[in-house]
Amino acid sequence: MIGIGVIGYGYWGPNLVRNFAQVDGAGVVAVCDGRQERLGVVNKLYPAVNTYTDAGAMLADPAVDAVVIATPVSTHYPLAKQALLAGKHVFVEKPFTATSAEGEELIALADERELTLMVDHTFIYTSAVRKIHELVSAGELGKLYYYDSVRVNLGLFQSDVSVMWDLAVHDLSIMDYLLDCDPVTVSATGVAHVPGQPENMAYLTCMFPDNLIAHFHVNWLAPVKVRQTLLCGSEKMVVFDDVDMSEKVKVYDKGVILDEAEEAVYQRHVGYRTGDMWAPRLDNVEALAIETQHFVDCIISGDTPLSDGRAGLRVVRILEAAHESMARRGLPIEILPMRGSV
Amino acid sequence: MIGIGVIGYGYWGPNLVRNFAQVDGAGVVAVCDGRQERLGVVNKLYPAVNTYTDAGAMLADPAVDAVVIATPVSTHYPLAKQALLAGKHVFVEKPFTATSAEGEELIALADERELTLMVDHTFIYTSAVRKIHELVSAGELGKLYYYDSVRVNLGLFQSDVSVMWDLAVHDLSIMDYLLDCDPVTVSATGVAHVPGQPENMAYLTCMFPDNLIAHFHVNWLAPVKVRQTLLCGSEKMVVFDDVDMSEKVKVYDKGVILDEAEEAVYQRHVGYRTGDMWAPRLDNVEALAIETQHFVDCIISGDTPLSDGRAGLRVVRILEAAHESMARRGLPIEILPMRGSV
Amino acid sequence: MIGIGVIGYGYWGPNLVRNFAQVDGAGVVAVCDGRQERLGVVNKLYPAVNTYTDAGAMLADPAVDAVVIATPVSTHYPLAKQALLAGKHVFVEKPFTATSAEGEELIALADERELTLMVDHTFIYTSAVRKIHELVSAGELGKLYYYDSVRVNLGLFQSDVSVMWDLAVHDLSIMDYLLDCDPVTVSATGVAHVPGQPENMAYLTCMFPDNLIAHFHVNWLAPVKVRQTLLCGSEKMVVFDDVDMSEKVKVYDKGVILDEAEEAVYQRHVGYRTGDMWAPRLDNVEALAIETQHFVDCIISGDTPLSDGRAGLRVVRILEAAHESMARRGLPIEILPMRGSV
Amino acid sequence: MIGIGVIGYGYWGPNLVRNFAQVDGAGVVAVCDGRQERLGVVNKLYPAVNTYTDAGAMLADPAVDAVVIATPVSTHYPLAKQALLAGKHVFVEKPFTATSAEGEELIALADERELTLMVDHTFIYTSAVRKIHELVSAGELGKLYYYDSVRVNLGLFQSDVSVMWDLAVHDLSIMDYLLDCDPVTVSATGVAHVPGQPENMAYLTCMFPDNLIAHFHVNWLAPVKVRQTLLCGSEKMVVFDDVDMSEKVKVYDKGVILDEAEEAVYQRHVGYRTGDMWAPRLDNVEALAIETQHFVDCIISGDTPLSDGRAGLRVVRILEAAHESMARRGLPIEILPMRGSV
Repeated sequence: MIGIGVIGYGYWGPNLVRNFAQVDGAGVVAVCDGRQERLGVVNKLYPAVNTYTDAGAMLADPAVDAVVIATPVSTHYPLAKQALLAGKHVFVEKPFTATSAEGEELIALADERELTLMVDHTFIYTSAVRKIHELVSAGELGKLYYYDSVRVNLGLFQSDVSVMWDLAVHDLSIMDYLLDCDPVTVSATGVAHVPGQPENMAYLTCMFPDNLIAHFHVNWLAPVKVRQTLLCGSEKMVVFDDVDMSEKVKVYDKGVILDEAEEAVYQRHVGYRTGDMWAPRLDNVEALAIETQHFVDCIISGDTPLSDGRAGLRVVRILEAAHESMARRGLPIEILPMRGSV
Repeated sequence: MIGIGVIGYGYWGPNLVRNFAQVDGAGVVAVCDGRQERLGVVNKLYPAVNTYTDAGAMLADPAVDAVVIATPVSTHYPLAKQALLAGKHVFVEKPFTATSAEGEELIALADERELTLMVDHTFIYTSAVRKIHELVSAGELGKLYYYDSVRVNLGLFQSDVSVMWDLAVHDLSIMDYLLDCDPVTVSATGVAHVPGQPENMAYLTCMFPDNLIAHFHVNWLAPVKVRQTLLCGSEKMVVFDDVDMSEKVKVYDKGVILDEAEEAVYQRHVGYRTGDMWAPRLDNVEALAIETQHFVDCIISGDTPLSDGRAGLRVVRILEAAHESMARRGLPIEILPMRGSV
Repeated sequence: MIGIGVIGYGYWGPNLVRNFAQVDGAGVVAVCDGRQERLGVVNKLYPAVNTYTDAGAMLADPAVDAVVIATPVSTHYPLAKQALLAGKHVFVEKPFTATSAEGEELIALADERELTLMVDHTFIYTSAVRKIHELVSAGELGKLYYYDSVRVNLGLFQSDVSVMWDLAVHDLSIMDYLLDCDPVTVSATGVAHVPGQPENMAYLTCMFPDNLIAHFHVNWLAPVKVRQTLLCGSEKMVVFDDVDMSEKVKVYDKGVILDEAEEAVYQRHVGYRTGDMWAPRLDNVEALAIETQHFVDCIISGDTPLSDGRAGLRVVRILEAAHESMARRGLPIEILPMRGSV
Repeated sequence: MIGIGVIGYGYWGPNLVRNFAQVDGAGVVAVCDGRQERLGVVNKLYPAVNTYTDAGAMLADPAVDAVVIATPVSTHYPLAKQALLAGKHVFVEKPFTATSAEGEELIALADERELTLMVDHTFIYTSAVRKIHELVSAGELGKLYYYDSVRVNLGLFQSDVSVMWDLAVHDLSIMDYLLDCDPVTVSATGVAHVPGQPENMAYLTCMFPDNLIAHFHVNWLAPVKVRQTLLCGSEKMVVFDDVDMSEKVKVYDKGVILDEAEEAVYQRHVGYRTGDMWAPRLDNVEALAIETQHFVDCIISGDTPLSDGRAGLRVVRILEAAHESMARRGLPIEILPMRGSV
């Protein structure tokens, strides 16, 4: 049985503990958090789990085989490095690291020590994204034209990172998985409405070869939660609305229409959509249950996780480029492709 | 009674004729269209209206006091100029003109001849936009932070103009009316997925003084019709969803939240919105009915229309700047303010 | 060309005039309304149409071949009888007549004189209902289990008829068309919240052979407009939401599920739906355009209209039975089947 | 600390255990379930909790102060009786009991022994229902006219009870709480589409004094999950849509409209609603967390729970009457009021 130690029991930690506690082949043996009152919650719910206020102490616990890091992004690199050096497998929250250099070092370290390194790109384990991936992989959408995503939130400010590192990271991880190719340039515009705080809204554009474009609107300062992605191709178009409980994924059976007949033009002016729509039923499985099981399975089998360190690094590179573009008034920044290189 | 002559009986012309036919103080006396079969439709519905295939002939008709131009944008300038020179008042479809130089010339001509010149910015006459204008004018939203608009359509391609001139013109006219100030810079990115055709999707950003930002996503190539605008301020936020039949305008009673308490953070993570929401009831009045009446009233009173030539010109200038930015990979283009100058 | 004369230019009359004006093979030649100001509207819009304040005078007009009756239900029978006796074809608003005896007499009269008699069951000519009819006729839904309909309105009171005669008539006409069979019993409960006024809300139940049940909730006193119908069978289920602009008809590919496995039970508890959903694209054609053309075509060909007097009578019979049941505290009232009898 | 013992660890039991584990002043000390594999799940998640396959053995455990019964309804009475006789407080799933006689006996027994007896009417502890209760209690809705509820589910069949006992129990408990008065008559119609199975869909009507009517549509056999309640009064109307994540409760600021002006009639025909709408923000608190805390608090303070045995009994009486009405073709069954009697 793989012993899991979780560092960080704040907002997301409890979900990780609950899920790892139910994974086959593993169990949660330790939780670490600097705040004593958070450990009190753990003790009440899981009296059999060891609690630590110091990460180093937890890493010294021989019952811990793998470490789950659910702390602020600035601490991912030192904690993950320490864990890898202690011979532990690592599962780290997104964004993977604060810089691509940090990410590269962790990947090299894990490779060298043959340890499993996985980034918590939760969304790619959801039923919705897996279903869309199935459609894209099978070529059902035809030639891809654009990816457009809106993720706006309820005025939740975080003072340590900008909205891009907080929210766009989700969409970039989904895009990375679905498009399975690297952008050529990245540009971004953002605004900080609160003096001295990081950007609270941003627009980010990725250009890919062959006129494929991806655009992201991320925003902390909105009255409603919106999570909508359009993925459109020459044959079919997909709308992914993560706030819609019953029809998260809608597939429209028409791509671009070039027919110019007068009647058709009129119909489209007054119409609300083209073609039939199909909304596949999705499983009600918690993504985190699948993902935590996948991590444990990869540790046991030695397989590479779907969201490995390299996936995490690809996303961090785009975020870095976007950050640079934002500082240069939206100048497109070139990005070196990772896929296909040795 | 003001005699109205309509040039162009294609998609929008019939709506104009139907509305002008019901305006107090005016009547439709003539319709002009090069296509004989379109005039046949007019003859069946309105046997008392004179029909012309030639605009010059219609302009010579002394019963025509005002001319409504509902033809492709490239013809707006020559037709409007001809009409003004013939001493007719002019109501012209949006976008006002194909270039700002054309627009300036028409404004000067109308001023000189003391003729009413109005641009069909229909949306600013809707109950929804008027209600939002009321809120903004009264200062209810507080300091404005951003304007974000998505207008995506059902794969309707037009070969003469790009999606920006076709769709963004609506949103820019709404923004011009609601924000009542001029942007400092404009940048835009667009993609043409069909070789040899104009851009079929574009993202446009306007920066205003004091960190106010406006962003537009316009797209011909989408599976669903989306018309959603967010207008957010420090005190309140507005969502305008023009596809929602019963709740087009929603007003959220909270602005940005800066409270960082742990529980509040958790609530916003799991919550779907902050604060109460209020959806004012809107009148069921056709915007075009109000707008056509306004045109006739302005002719009679000599008042300046809400959407006069200058409003049309401000929108054309933004479109021109966006076009230039798009050709220069998103470079922000400065724009000279029209308001407040002499 | 068939000359159409319209009696009644209130709420619905203008729609009828506009549509009959565009029908092939016909034209509106006369409009009759007791209110002079309504005729003034007609004169402004359609200067070529003759206007009458007296129905008898209009019936004497030899240019009138067919009469369209858009007046309160109590006047349907005398006006339609007068028109048929004058040798005119008749198109009458729903409900067909105030009593089944009146309806029977009109049917006999039209049969005898070989005149076309049609009831304005507009909904069965909509794209949505025609699409559902197509599915039901093809047997795609399997054995039908139930029809459930909710039609609630915005507090609009009519003092002459109860909500059942005003609203349920729509749903009964749709049900009559889709199920294509007659109920065995009808029961109803209604409440009048305003003393001295007719019932403003009612629940109506029709039992058919073989456990097929239909239920209707009609209500004038609601905050929102709801128009939702469920039609469920053993193989597929249909949701028809007439307020939804883009997905009026949704077809779910599963019927009743009898599988009792624990996991399946859990999934359905937490799930939002079973099976895939398909939303067919519907034409953007005005139902009234199709229906008015159908009336004129039937006059010319001598064919029986889809919504002939017998369809109108079947609906009136159900309304009569419901009215009786309502007076007897919901007692189920038997109804004599019309279909299959000679 | 109050020791909690839970009987039944099927669908709902895990939620009860998780919530009671976090209640102040209490802890889960024992879980009982006949199925060994269910106890295995408990042992993995909560190693410190004692597990039993026999209820009698658990009741003998002195650490158990209160018993939570989450088993099929037919077992509620014997288990609750056994627990009360053993001196344990009781929290029992809804419906309270299979007959009103059973419920009366349990109430008497708890009264006699001064034990807390509470029924799990979860919905009345939700933020949404509490907010509506606040509005109703404050008289904001004016005179109440009707309560209309639709609860339809995803084809989940249960062979032991009919849909009424399974689903209507939720709505009846909400209605009992919100209206705070007893119906005079109950009538119901139901259909069993599967031979040998209980009714899978039913319509239930409660008549109250002074023309207040409540109607319920419950259905296991539907393609989509619907949970919508209308509560309308003379001054305001409420729509409670439990499937809507962001606007569960909408309050419309108009009651019934009796104004008969022609223009108003037209507006309401074409309009989508009357008056402004207000959607109060609701707390994101799990109802079960509040409810389980309330049970423990009542044990400690000796207060009567909001959903005590009497509330449970009132609901069971309506279900019994509905059952009888259903067997008698919808005959209205009189019901003796519980409130205000001694």
